[in-house]
Amino acid sequence: MNSELQATTEAGRKFVSLAEEHAADFATRADQHDREASFPHENIAALQESGFLAGPIPAEFGGMGVNTLHDISVGMSRLGRGCASTAIAANMHIAAAWEMSRIWRWREQAAPGMAEAVEGLMKGIAAKQIIACGANTEAGTDLSSPMTEATPTEDGYAINGRKMFGTLSPAANLVFSFVRVPEGDGFRGCLAFYPKNAPGVTVLDNWDALGMRASGSHDIVLENLRVPRASVVPGRTWGVMDAGAADTYVSLNFSLACCFLGIAEAARDLAIERATRKKGAKAKMLGERVPIQQLIAEIEIGLATSRAIFDRVAHMADAYFSSYAPGEAPGQEAYAMLKENQIMKWVIQRKAIDIVDKAMTATGGSAYLASSPFSRLYRDVRAGPFMQPFAPYEALEYIGKVTLGIDPQLDR
Amino acid sequence: MNSELQATTEAGRKFVSLAEEHAADFATRADQHDREASFPHENIAALQESGFLAGPIPAEFGGMGVNTLHDISVGMSRLGRGCASTAIAANMHIAAAWEMSRIWRWREQAAPGMAEAVEGLMKGIAAKQIIACGANTEAGTDLSSPMTEATPTEDGYAINGRKMFGTLSPAANLVFSFVRVPEGDGFRGCLAFYPKNAPGVTVLDNWDALGMRASGSHDIVLENLRVPRASVVPGRTWGVMDAGAADTYVSLNFSLACCFLGIAEAARDLAIERATRKKGAKAKMLGERVPIQQLIAEIEIGLATSRAIFDRVAHMADAYFSSYAPGEAPGQEAYAMLKENQIMKWVIQRKAIDIVDKAMTATGGSAYLASSPFSRLYRDVRAGPFMQPFAPYEALEYIGKVTLGIDPQLDR
Amino acid sequence: MNSELQATTEAGRKFVSLAEEHAADFATRADQHDREASFPHENIAALQESGFLAGPIPAEFGGMGVNTLHDISVGMSRLGRGCASTAIAANMHIAAAWEMSRIWRWREQAAPGMAEAVEGLMKGIAAKQIIACGANTEAGTDLSSPMTEATPTEDGYAINGRKMFGTLSPAANLVFSFVRVPEGDGFRGCLAFYPKNAPGVTVLDNWDALGMRASGSHDIVLENLRVPRASVVPGRTWGVMDAGAADTYVSLNFSLACCFLGIAEAARDLAIERATRKKGAKAKMLGERVPIQQLIAEIEIGLATSRAIFDRVAHMADAYFSSYAPGEAPGQEAYAMLKENQIMKWVIQRKAIDIVDKAMTATGGSAYLASSPFSRLYRDVRAGPFMQPFAPYEALEYIGKVTLGIDPQLDR
Amino acid sequence: MNSELQATTEAGRKFVSLAEEHAADFATRADQHDREASFPHENIAALQESGFLAGPIPAEFGGMGVNTLHDISVGMSRLGRGCASTAIAANMHIAAAWEMSRIWRWREQAAPGMAEAVEGLMKGIAAKQIIACGANTEAGTDLSSPMTEATPTEDGYAINGRKMFGTLSPAANLVFSFVRVPEGDGFRGCLAFYPKNAPGVTVLDNWDALGMRASGSHDIVLENLRVPRASVVPGRTWGVMDAGAADTYVSLNFSLACCFLGIAEAARDLAIERATRKKGAKAKMLGERVPIQQLIAEIEIGLATSRAIFDRVAHMADAYFSSYAPGEAPGQEAYAMLKENQIMKWVIQRKAIDIVDKAMTATGGSAYLASSPFSRLYRDVRAGPFMQPFAPYEALEYIGKVTLGIDPQLDR
Repeated sequence: MNSELQATTEAGRKFVSLAEEHAADFATRADQHDREASFPHENIAALQESGFLAGPIPAEFGGMGVNTLHDISVGMSRLGRGCASTAIAANMHIAAAWEMSRIWRWREQAAPGMAEAVEGLMKGIAAKQIIACGANTEAGTDLSSPMTEATPTEDGYAINGRKMFGTLSPAANLVFSFVRVPEGDGFRGCLAFYPKNAPGVTVLDNWDALGMRASGSHDIVLENLRVPRASVVPGRTWGVMDAGAADTYVSLNFSLACCFLGIAEAARDLAIERATRKKGAKAKMLGERVPIQQLIAEIEIGLATSRAIFDRVAHMADAYFSSYAPGEAPGQEAYAMLKENQIMKWVIQRKAIDIVDKAMTATGGSAYLASSPFSRLYRDVRAGPFMQPFAPYEALEYIGKVTLGIDPQLDR
Repeated sequence: MNSELQATTEAGRKFVSLAEEHAADFATRADQHDREASFPHENIAALQESGFLAGPIPAEFGGMGVNTLHDISVGMSRLGRGCASTAIAANMHIAAAWEMSRIWRWREQAAPGMAEAVEGLMKGIAAKQIIACGANTEAGTDLSSPMTEATPTEDGYAINGRKMFGTLSPAANLVFSFVRVPEGDGFRGCLAFYPKNAPGVTVLDNWDALGMRASGSHDIVLENLRVPRASVVPGRTWGVMDAGAADTYVSLNFSLACCFLGIAEAARDLAIERATRKKGAKAKMLGERVPIQQLIAEIEIGLATSRAIFDRVAHMADAYFSSYAPGEAPGQEAYAMLKENQIMKWVIQRKAIDIVDKAMTATGGSAYLASSPFSRLYRDVRAGPFMQPFAPYEALEYIGKVTLGIDPQLDR
Repeated sequence: MNSELQATTEAGRKFVSLAEEHAADFATRADQHDREASFPHENIAALQESGFLAGPIPAEFGGMGVNTLHDISVGMSRLGRGCASTAIAANMHIAAAWEMSRIWRWREQAAPGMAEAVEGLMKGIAAKQIIACGANTEAGTDLSSPMTEATPTEDGYAINGRKMFGTLSPAANLVFSFVRVPEGDGFRGCLAFYPKNAPGVTVLDNWDALGMRASGSHDIVLENLRVPRASVVPGRTWGVMDAGAADTYVSLNFSLACCFLGIAEAARDLAIERATRKKGAKAKMLGERVPIQQLIAEIEIGLATSRAIFDRVAHMADAYFSSYAPGEAPGQEAYAMLKENQIMKWVIQRKAIDIVDKAMTATGGSAYLASSPFSRLYRDVRAGPFMQPFAPYEALEYIGKVTLGIDPQLDR
Repeated sequence: MNSELQATTEAGRKFVSLAEEHAADFATRADQHDREASFPHENIAALQESGFLAGPIPAEFGGMGVNTLHDISVGMSRLGRGCASTAIAANMHIAAAWEMSRIWRWREQAAPGMAEAVEGLMKGIAAKQIIACGANTEAGTDLSSPMTEATPTEDGYAINGRKMFGTLSPAANLVFSFVRVPEGDGFRGCLAFYPKNAPGVTVLDNWDALGMRASGSHDIVLENLRVPRASVVPGRTWGVMDAGAADTYVSLNFSLACCFLGIAEAARDLAIERATRKKGAKAKMLGERVPIQQLIAEIEIGLATSRAIFDRVAHMADAYFSSYAPGEAPGQEAYAMLKENQIMKWVIQRKAIDIVDKAMTATGGSAYLASSPFSRLYRDVRAGPFMQPFAPYEALEYIGKVTLGIDPQLDR
């Protein structure tokens, strides 16, 4: 009886298997990259080389053809076991590739030119020419209210602003950013994409954090970046999280949470390895002590819970994305989907933090030494609750409002 | 988007739908039966009349043919919403009927005569002639070590002992009990079945508890009860929980936990109904207050977690029961299955208690009045952690031992 | 080493010792009163007879002279061990007597006539002629916004309204109620007191709740109740919780929380008694099992925490009440005092619920039977979080606002 | 109303005030030492220079004369606010100095020569000549069963072994270690002290941990270290934690837990500073949002709980140490004192971890950057549960056993 998450499609199984191979390799360098805060360029190169980065791209364009969020996310959880920084960095690109494949699957509902654009990007990814990342967070505002502005020019836009948490930016060559475009007295929310090496784009080399130190989450400064008109896609209402925004958040953030499940799984394995090996004070194996058994049980319960909530919500999500074209779901459906997604994220991330904590306790003082992988897992895992779009307390408010049938705009 | 549990088979959908109808009816009398501690004979009669009690019986014998534990359990959760006492009482019979259908599906592996016996029982159930209950708990010992003894006689056995928590006994006419049979210097664990109205069987009218007051969980005293040889089925090793015992525990207890999920769902609905109606101090709907939204969110997270862990483990259980004949699973598989089952039970029952508590908090002081259904739900839901085979702290020890690959006998 | 709460004054020690004697007596009838929902008139009579009800009354007026909230509250916790319903009923009166003694200690700052009025009441209490209770809660509003109205008449007021949770009302002969008096376009918040047997006062015999069933917390209906002018004391601003209201809430509710500490202590004793007695399945004393030891430890930690937070906040409260005349504390001090009080209440009540739950788990299935005191403790203890002035989520909001230096009016 | 911990003696107030001054200074360098894992020699020098290190030394020998564990511990909590690494390093010495002063207060009960030896050490400390540290932890065994062995020689002992977590070792010149001395077929537990610069003592420069990086907790290797007979003080039974061991553990570890309270207080202050400053997305101060108020409230409740449990147990400890000479308390008293101490430690350390977590959540993503003090607090605070003598699960077992009156030797 294997209680691990399993892919449900043939393409998914290959993707997951590939993730496991990469994870085993990445694990050997994870501590070093963490210590040096160095970007694991060789990991991303390996992921590109093996075709993993083309996982969600349809086979007809040269990708692996993994077409369910479930299987993609299972793969990301496996990657997270080896090196969480690499996993969240790779997830930036994988989520973008998934979104492209989604647009393409619904190409008959897409805006004119969109399908072609997306097809080109996907071919570029499959051809190992494109690595994409998003840069969306800004200080002092929320995702629905970007301050970065795309000012119309004669032939396109000039973009100015500053983005944070530009994970994967050292390796990416294509960047997506939420921007605002002046419209009447207000703004319209849009999505801009641009080459990382375009004039006006500066990736600062300033990522220095408690954990996820190898994720390259630098700031990205945009100064008078000129892009053609087609590179700014009209999107949502600026300043409110409408149904379209909810739809996008789910699609782009779903698999991210699973990287943290992978951290928890790695911590669990370490604790069990220790408990079944150590000869403690009185020459008793640690795992023979009932309190250690209980800690291990609490870890297993936590993992089982996380896997179950993932499994159930992932199937909901795949049903949702099969039913509605991007941005076309009725408001209540999109809100309900984001609600389920946030429940999943809430559970997985709190459980992951708790599991790492308990695994350290079960392991004992050696878990506190820098030479222990726990010293990395403990820091990496804390990144989860900071992830977009909601802080934990915001997620509660959102979930409650949707459940009660109230307009889910947060009181902030 | 409906996040409720759903049956996965056509027969299951009918069973669940029937459960919903019954639940709506039972809910109208639940408070009264609770207050009077009266047994809801009319509810059990209705369940028999509608065919619900023949839910797991194959269609060829006149049953509904629900052949997955998943769907059976979903039905029990629905029943639990209306009247938890009735649900756990009915579950006694449903679990026995499920076990019969399981034996019959694996009849080629069964002991001689077993298939015929089971077929007869199932036909009796479908013909609305048999209602079965178990009586297994004894004071001062655990399930694997019954003190009730079946002493061999010339033509069968004489059984003496005292059982507790004989849920459904007022309505049942067939009783199952774990007994021990002397063997060498020790005992063998066996399963006995006997008519409730046989000489020597006394159902005391003594069930008086904090909650589940309408479940008829009386003590059953067996004094020189004579049964034929075929009525005592050799089972497990006495005094240890071996793989066969683990297998049986899962099969007989699986759906029980779901009755508590139903309690939680009822509490959730009450809280939401209140939050979207009440005009509080300052004429604001309760649900418009962020702290109430957060409480509702925590309830939803708890429910989503319970449903997800059920869904995943139920699918594991159905796969397990499709793979192995009763008692034939390899030890590690049976232990692993019971481990997953106990994780599920642990999560569902703690979450149910927590959900009722939070729903009461969200509702306010009126939830504390005897006229509120909460005053019943609060008492009923606390029964869960006392349910066999493990107390919560024992479950942790068991889960930990299995995970660590240690012999899962508890240190007790 | 005794970790129980101890009185700190000589008068306090006598009060606590008396409480212990009463508790031992009340414990013998607690289950019966609970089952019958009968009011323990004989308990209240015994408390009056022994002088306990005159605990806070100065010795010069014939009372016991317990002049610290700390010692009074320790006494109430002892009473709570025996019968929580009696304890919270008695607390109604004790809190009122404490408030009178407080007013009298600061009589030089009191309004004209107040000291004399209070002196008369205290003498009446010491002479065993007066038993006082409050009736303040109303459906659909909060404590600071009573809807019960005192309409000025020629010679006083006519009061109309309906109060809930009139704990102790079967035995009281003097009642206090928050009322509003029309003032300009709005209202002024006032405190009215009146004889229970006055025309216009009807104590309904309708208390029927989940727990605290012997507390006599009936509704009290006031219909054209005529009182003289002096019986309505001008108090606070109506509709907001200003500093004066905060001051009153602390003074009148402080000792109430300790009744719940007493419940927790009773549950702890039961669990330990059981753990050191029971011979379980394999003839091992329950307490010899490590998981039971851990449960007992968690109970002890919970109790130690509750006692500690009580001890520290009670000393703060006694310092506060020694420093400021009633209603005269600066706003920030009164808010800060109520904040500390609410922290104490929050901790004690959640811990008490948790301790009862864990004690039941440690005890096993017998704790679920109606014959077990746990079946009463489990229901009684849940009353705590419903107690005035704040629900748990409101308490958090209040504590946070005061800590952040924000106006502590709740967003409701 | 100030809810901070306060010293209760005049000497204590000076000590606490001095701690606050030092903490303000140390805070300016804490992040740098953390990042470099450099030992804050200048901090320890400043503590020596100001007389802080002579805090517990009687005034007659030139110390500050702080003679209650309560006040000493309050001082350590203040130091912990500024730099936790420095605080736990200084605590090594302070605890040793406290233990010396305790022995000296009970000098009439002390072994011959002990008073003189201790007097000499205390004068040396007051004269700023001695800084003491302990080195007691060893891999693969527990505190009561040291493997480091003192072999009798003609004129004393030869000591061999390896100690871990030699906190403060870079600055100390006197080291204390638990050792074993062969006795019959077994061993006797003893306490050895020796100059750090003695031949045979090697302090490795190998401390590299998740947090507490500036604490200098290096390994100390003892190879054929020769010490005179008087430097090995006979102590406890080897291999069991008897009453004498319990007595010593309380005395030497009591104040350590308070350093973690200081971390929690620092985290709280940062969160409040942030909440009352930040202009969030919609130009609203963070603290104006109810969910942030609730987080702050939970932090305040956690702090209030920690402070209260400290206050109460510290007063118990001071009463205990005033009643019994070192090692002379009856077994049940010593066990009970260690039980209370472990309850205090358990609460303070879990709450501290929780408070830092919640403070980070309230602060938002900036708390995850290396430039935020939170990135240090989050790592430092996790050291707590690893501290001697018990892991959290061991503490539960110990507390439970003592409560149940069972021999408190752990089942390990």
